[in-house]
Amino acid sequence: MEEYKVLDCGFVRLVDKMGDDSSIVQGARVSYGTGTKTLNKDKGLIEYLWKNKHTSPFEMCEIKLHIKCPIFIARQWLRHRTANVNEYSGRYSVMKGDYYVPDKICTQSTLNKQASAGYVSRETEERMRSDILKVSEYALGLYHEYLAQGVSRETCRILLPINFYTEFYWKIDLHNLLHFLKLRNHDHAQSEIRSYAEIILEKIVKPWVPLCYGAFKKY
Amino acid sequence: MEEYKVLDCGFVRLVDKMGDDSSIVQGARVSYGTGTKTLNKDKGLIEYLWKNKHTSPFEMCEIKLHIKCPIFIARQWLRHRTANVNEYSGRYSVMKGDYYVPDKICTQSTLNKQASAGYVSRETEERMRSDILKVSEYALGLYHEYLAQGVSRETCRILLPINFYTEFYWKIDLHNLLHFLKLRNHDHAQSEIRSYAEIILEKIVKPWVPLCYGAFKKY
Amino acid sequence: MEEYKVLDCGFVRLVDKMGDDSSIVQGARVSYGTGTKTLNKDKGLIEYLWKNKHTSPFEMCEIKLHIKCPIFIARQWLRHRTANVNEYSGRYSVMKGDYYVPDKICTQSTLNKQASAGYVSRETEERMRSDILKVSEYALGLYHEYLAQGVSRETCRILLPINFYTEFYWKIDLHNLLHFLKLRNHDHAQSEIRSYAEIILEKIVKPWVPLCYGAFKKY
Amino acid sequence: MEEYKVLDCGFVRLVDKMGDDSSIVQGARVSYGTGTKTLNKDKGLIEYLWKNKHTSPFEMCEIKLHIKCPIFIARQWLRHRTANVNEYSGRYSVMKGDYYVPDKICTQSTLNKQASAGYVSRETEERMRSDILKVSEYALGLYHEYLAQGVSRETCRILLPINFYTEFYWKIDLHNLLHFLKLRNHDHAQSEIRSYAEIILEKIVKPWVPLCYGAFKKY
Repeated sequence: MEEYKVLDCGFVRLVDKMGDDSSIVQGARVSYGTGTKTLNKDKGLIEYLWKNKHTSPFEMCEIKLHIKCPIFIARQWLRHRTANVNEYSGRYSVMKGDYYVPDKICTQSTLNKQASAGYVSRETEERMRSDILKVSEYALGLYHEYLAQGVSRETCRILLPINFYTEFYWKIDLHNLLHFLKLRNHDHAQSEIRSYAEIILEKIVKPWVPLCYGAFKKY
Repeated sequence: MEEYKVLDCGFVRLVDKMGDDSSIVQGARVSYGTGTKTLNKDKGLIEYLWKNKHTSPFEMCEIKLHIKCPIFIARQWLRHRTANVNEYSGRYSVMKGDYYVPDKICTQSTLNKQASAGYVSRETEERMRSDILKVSEYALGLYHEYLAQGVSRETCRILLPINFYTEFYWKIDLHNLLHFLKLRNHDHAQSEIRSYAEIILEKIVKPWVPLCYGAFKKY
Repeated sequence: MEEYKVLDCGFVRLVDKMGDDSSIVQGARVSYGTGTKTLNKDKGLIEYLWKNKHTSPFEMCEIKLHIKCPIFIARQWLRHRTANVNEYSGRYSVMKGDYYVPDKICTQSTLNKQASAGYVSRETEERMRSDILKVSEYALGLYHEYLAQGVSRETCRILLPINFYTEFYWKIDLHNLLHFLKLRNHDHAQSEIRSYAEIILEKIVKPWVPLCYGAFKKY
Repeated sequence: MEEYKVLDCGFVRLVDKMGDDSSIVQGARVSYGTGTKTLNKDKGLIEYLWKNKHTSPFEMCEIKLHIKCPIFIARQWLRHRTANVNEYSGRYSVMKGDYYVPDKICTQSTLNKQASAGYVSRETEERMRSDILKVSEYALGLYHEYLAQGVSRETCRILLPINFYTEFYWKIDLHNLLHFLKLRNHDHAQSEIRSYAEIILEKIVKPWVPLCYGAFKKY
């Protein structure tokens, strides 16, 4: 299974896929019947469909990914409702204990309420990274301590911070994937989820459906 | 492409599929993590998931079918909203002109408002079959006549009866497919759609995901 | 209940609604918390949300309509999947027998595969209107004849053309309603569904959520 | 606005609702047309619909709630995809700083992988409650410290544990609400989300749609 590393402990794995560029064309052709002789070049047709927001043929392709990302990213990710999901459950299983410590620490943008802008000083960065590590290790220590004393897994985990990693299978059709990528590979998105979106777009979508990727980048 | 004939001119074709029984197990295992050692027989796990309505692992499989059925069946079919669809468009293309004439004519059930029960006399049956054919041919003749005079396709088709055939690609995950089959392979469903549901269940689902098929039949 | 006539026998009725412009603002404010002091004019905020495709606050409003339209329009309408629907059933009940005869007959566009363009001659128009009426009356006569002979409703109706009227309740959130209106009040849409979309936009959406209507028209 | 307290700092508020028992009946009647004279008592009809899983009439009612709950509960909650959501954003706004400390600490069930069973000793309980408080205060202190130093909100929040409270508007139709309540007011659900589900069922659903509530409890 192809695997792409993201952030310090995360990954995107391509588990399975169904269809390709020609499935988009095939889906469009059943709708257009024999009436599209003049659009019979696949590239042109796919660009036409994309530009004119004829979205249903793009739904004819499906992909399944295995994602490992911090909880705060998973929370943004799973707000997208048109996907099938199986997530690792901290009720059934012991959490694996990986957590995320950012490389670079950003300052609050004063122009955009939701965004970061620029970096803090080297000294603040080191101090904050060290504090994130400390609070994470402190929480993880307590987590294992109370597990060992027989407290239920579903209770122990409530003290873990949202920089801890979770994992899920994520299955989605190409139309909704591209919508996700448009929103999350955007400069308004948080940089961590953009790292995932960019990997998916460049490493997975591009070789899978190159004509569709071309249309996506063009418009 | 495998094709199964249904009714007088219809079919179900298997276009593509993704995943199988082991994908259901894999989806369940990511949720259950390492905690399911005691359920490690796939058959038992799939039956457990199905019986306890843990539906998300079944969403990890996807199938794409090509359906040809009368419009009145397509209307029932496409009420199921959790699927991806590309339907033949009578606006873009000339309708192919196939229409459905039932083999047997049923009488209205007096017990169940929505159902048929028993058969009309042989004589009524023959008369009605002949009348269905007549009105279909009459409508089809007018359709082609006005097309030939330059009337738009989208207007000409409005006089075609709902026994005319349409075609569509239909892509759906296994959980929602089984929900569809439970409702449409049921004795409250109209016999024509049951014919399609039965074919899909026995000819396509059974060889594709045999353990899941077993659980479906058992509960 | 407000009722707006559409086509020869159709209507749009406003059954119920929930929320208004201020609910969109309220939805946005919970997401933005106390951070939006500078955007505190509702009109500006709604235009900002619309322009930047922040769609979730528009989902905070809901509307329920009662629609009566020809079957070929209902087929286009119910392809929109994110709505709740209860449709009149020709299996449970006798069809009411209204059918649609277009006022004007359009010719096929040679530029756009799916569209009409211009009108046929007055003479062709009269002849076709008369033929639509004839095939509709012929089918309706047979429908009632076989019902009277005890044939099941679900079978009798299969010979009715798609210009026959159906009815349904349609409940949808404002974001998805506006998406529907953008696609169906568009010059690529069939003129009959545009008549419905225009009525809904001008007679129902405009007085209901005037700021949102303004943003919709502006962008 | 009606408000019901849940857990130590949470609540459920009823923001708005649309429809009632009679809307379910009205939805069913448009589907059944004039054919249901014999089912004309609303109570009987609603029980019949519920028992036979005729779910679409229940979708004719809609409700909007304002929820405040810990993040680990919100994660379970928002896995239900058929709802409209506006959640408080820790990117736009400073987190309010409330966190959840359980009253009682449960031990891990040995029979059910995902469940708690019984309580830990009084002494372990006190120690764990105190540790949850300590890690929460530690994280909250760091959160405010780095905010004050100009680090972006979206970065500062990543060290907050999942017992911190979030808030969201949640709008859902009655069919999907009842499905949620069936799963989350169940002894397999975590006790904290059951507290929310029970309040919604008893304090909000019961007075809103009493016939529907009766059918839900009966079957």
